Amino acid sequence: NIQAEYLIRVRELLPSGKPLHFWGIGHPSTFAFFVALGADSFDSAAYALFAEDGRYMTIEGTMYLKDLEEFPCDCPECSRYTPKEVKSMPQEEIMRFLARHNLHVCVREIKKVREAIRGGWLWELVQMRARYHPKLLEALIFTFKHFKDELEKREPFSKKSGLFYSGEETKERPEVYRAKKMLRRVIKVKRFFSTVLYDQVPIGLRYTYPFGQTHVPGEAEPEEEPTDEELISHILQYQFGPEAVNAFENPIVIRSKSTGMPRQVFDGEERVGMIRHYDGMFVPSLEGARKLVRVLPYPRSRVVIKRRFAETVARGTTVFTHFIEDIDPEIRPYQEVIAVDDSDSVLAVGKTILSGLEVEEFENHPFMKVRHHVLPRESETN
Amino acid sequence: NIQAEYLIRVRELLPSGKPLHFWGIGHPSTFAFFVALGADSFDSAAYALFAEDGRYMTIEGTMYLKDLEEFPCDCPECSRYTPKEVKSMPQEEIMRFLARHNLHVCVREIKKVREAIRGGWLWELVQMRARYHPKLLEALIFTFKHFKDELEKREPFSKKSGLFYSGEETKERPEVYRAKKMLRRVIKVKRFFSTVLYDQVPIGLRYTYPFGQTHVPGEAEPEEEPTDEELISHILQYQFGPEAVNAFENPIVIRSKSTGMPRQVFDGEERVGMIRHYDGMFVPSLEGARKLVRVLPYPRSRVVIKRRFAETVARGTTVFTHFIEDIDPEIRPYQEVIAVDDSDSVLAVGKTILSGLEVEEFENHPFMKVRHHVLPRESETN
Repeated sequence: NIQAEYLIRVRELLPSGKPLHFWGIGHPSTFAFFVALGADSFDSAAYALFAEDGRYMTIEGTMYLKDLEEFPCDCPECSRYTPKEVKSMPQEEIMRFLARHNLHVCVREIKKVREAIRGGWLWELVQMRARYHPKLLEALIFTFKHFKDELEKREPFSKKSGLFYSGEETKERPEVYRAKKMLRRVIKVKRFFSTVLYDQVPIGLRYTYPFGQTHVPGEAEPEEEPTDEELISHILQYQFGPEAVNAFENPIVIRSKSTGMPRQVFDGEERVGMIRHYDGMFVPSLEGARKLVRVLPYPRSRVVIKRRFAETVARGTTVFTHFIEDIDPEIRPYQEVIAVDDSDSVLAVGKTILSGLEVEEFENHPFMKVRHHVLPRESETN
Repeated sequence: NIQAEYLIRVRELLPSGKPLHFWGIGHPSTFAFFVALGADSFDSAAYALFAEDGRYMTIEGTMYLKDLEEFPCDCPECSRYTPKEVKSMPQEEIMRFLARHNLHVCVREIKKVREAIRGGWLWELVQMRARYHPKLLEALIFTFKHFKDELEKREPFSKKSGLFYSGEETKERPEVYRAKKMLRRVIKVKRFFSTVLYDQVPIGLRYTYPFGQTHVPGEAEPEEEPTDEELISHILQYQFGPEAVNAFENPIVIRSKSTGMPRQVFDGEERVGMIRHYDGMFVPSLEGARKLVRVLPYPRSRVVIKRRFAETVARGTTVFTHFIEDIDPEIRPYQEVIAVDDSDSVLAVGKTILSGLEVEEFENHPFMKVRHHVLPRESETN
C-alpha cells in the first residue's frame, strides 16, 4: 500500500513526459500493477537474491527448487535441464541457473505488460496478477479506492478490448468510476438497462464503451433494442455532454444490412458521422463537428489550435502539444475531439493520444491524430 | 457451466481410481479448473485450430499474431523468432509456428497444474485462471455453489500452502465450506476471533488449518493468544468431534522457547501428541491415540484393519485400501487418523492419502501413511 501510494504521489508531481524509474520492485507479479500506476522501469536484485535462497520464481507464485519435480516453464534454462539434474549441480551452478531463470520470468512479464498496454487490457492483467497474493489484491483495492481521480485522469476513454469483471475491486476500476460519473450528463432518459457495475444505463448506450464491452459473470445482454433517437441522444450526451442533444435537428441512423448494428448517422440529408463498430462511439464528420461546436459550451471537447498552426492542422497534420492554445481539461486519451481555431471554426476532427491535462506536461508530443480536416493536404494542392 | 456440471456428474459415477479423459477441452486457461473437478487428461485440436486462425495462445488471453509486436513467451519457438520475422513467413510456416507455440503453452500449463496439485495450491491456480474470462469465473462460481458436497468429499483436510482470497467466490471454496461445517463440532467456546471467510472462529484454532493459513486482503491476525486449555480443547474438537474434549485429563502445552508457538502436548506426565507447526493440527502419539479412541464414538477417525493385516500395520506398513474392514466415511485426505483392529485396539497412527469414501472405489491403493505403530518393524525384530 505504501509503495503504491508513494508511487502515485511521485507520479503526480512529475510531468507525464518524464519516465519514472521505480527502484527495488522485486517480484515480477507486481510489475503490471506498478506500471499501471505510472512506473516506467524497474530494477531489483530480487531475481538474484531469490536465486541465492534457492527460490524459483513463477508468475503464479514462488517455489523452492527443492520442492519442484518438473519445471513449469519453457525458458532456455528450464528447457535444458530437469529439476533433478539441477539439484545435483554444485551450489554455485544452481544459483546461476535460478538467477537466469528468474530473470527470464521478469523479462517475459515486462513483454506481457507491454502487450497488455498496446492491447488495452492492462487493468485486466493487473487484476489477474493481483491473485498472486492477497497483499497485492489489498494494495490494488486500496489504490482504486483512494486514487480514483488520479487514475481516471490518464485512463483511455475507449479501448479495443473488453472490460472483464474479476472480483469486487472491478467496481472501483477507473473506467467504471468515470463511466458512472459521466452517465450523470445523460438526461431525460426513458428506458434503461440494469448492470452490476454501472447500475442503470440508458438503453442508447448498450453498444457504447464501456457498457457494451463489459463482461460480468452471469450478466446477460440487455433485451431491448434502442431506437434511433435513443441511440443518438444518449451517445451524444455521454460523449459530449447534455447540450449535444441539440446538435442535430432530424437525426437518422442507418443500420448495417447484415448485422443490424447502427452505422451511419445522418441529420436529414447530411451525413454527420458514424457509430463506430467496436466501441459504439459517435465519430463526427466535419459537418457533424460544426453542428456540435455550435451547441457545446466552450471549451468542451475542443482542442484550440494556435493561430500559426491552424493551417497545418486544417491540412491534416497530427496535432502536437505545442500547437495547442487552449483545451478542454476533461479530454482523455482515445477520445473523439474537435480541433478549432481561435474563432471556434472547425479545422479537423480526430482522436486524442493524451489527456487534456497532460498538454502542459509534454513539450512536444503528438496529442491528436487527425481523421478529417477542412483543407486538402499540402501534397494534394501541389 | 454445462461442461463443468457434466464433468462432475460423470466423475461421481466413476470410481475415483479410474482416470477420466476429458475430450475437447481447448484452452489451457481452463485446464486447472477441469482438473480440479476431476479430469485427468485432455485432448483437443484447439492449439492447431487456433493456429489456423492466426491466433497466438497465452494463459492470460488469446491474441492475434498480427497484433503482436513482441512475444511474451520463452518457448523454443518464440525464443527463435520475432513476430516480425514470423509474419513474413509463408502462410504454412506461420501456422506451424503458431501450432507449436500453442502446444507449448498447453504443456507448460499441464506442468503447472501438476506442481499446484503437489504443492496444495490447485484452487489458488484455478482462481487465478478464472480471471482469464468472466465466463470461466462464472463457471467456477456456479460449480462452487452447486457442487459443494461433491467437491468437499475429495478435498484435502490440510495443506502446506496458504489459502488465498481472490474474490467473492473464495467464500464458496470447498475448504471454506467444510471448515464452517466442522466448526459446529466445537462447543462451549468462550473466546472467538472474527474472520471474513469463516465468521466467528474459536480462539484455540488461530494456528490451525485453514483458519491460521487464510490470507484475506485487509484482514489482520487475531490479537488475542489462546490459553493451553483453549488450544487443546478447540483443536481436538475441530479434528475429532466434541467428544474429544474428554480425552485428556490434565493437558499441558509446551511452547517453543524461540518462537513461543505451541509444540508438544502432555497429559500430566505423558506425551500425548504435538501441534504441527505448519498447519496447527494435533498429531497424536500412540498414547494420545489410545486416549482418543476411548472417548470417540465408533467409527469416528478410525481406520479399522482386517484381522489378517493387523500385525503388518502394527509393524508400520502403509495401509492399503484392501487392508480396511471398516472406516469413518467422514475421513478426508491428509487427515490424522487412527488405525485400530477389530476390537478397537490402536495399531498405528498416521495420515490419510484418500477420502474415507474412496476406500471402496480403489481396489489396491495406499490409503494411510503410518507415523507411529505399536510393534517394532520386521527388520527390527530380526
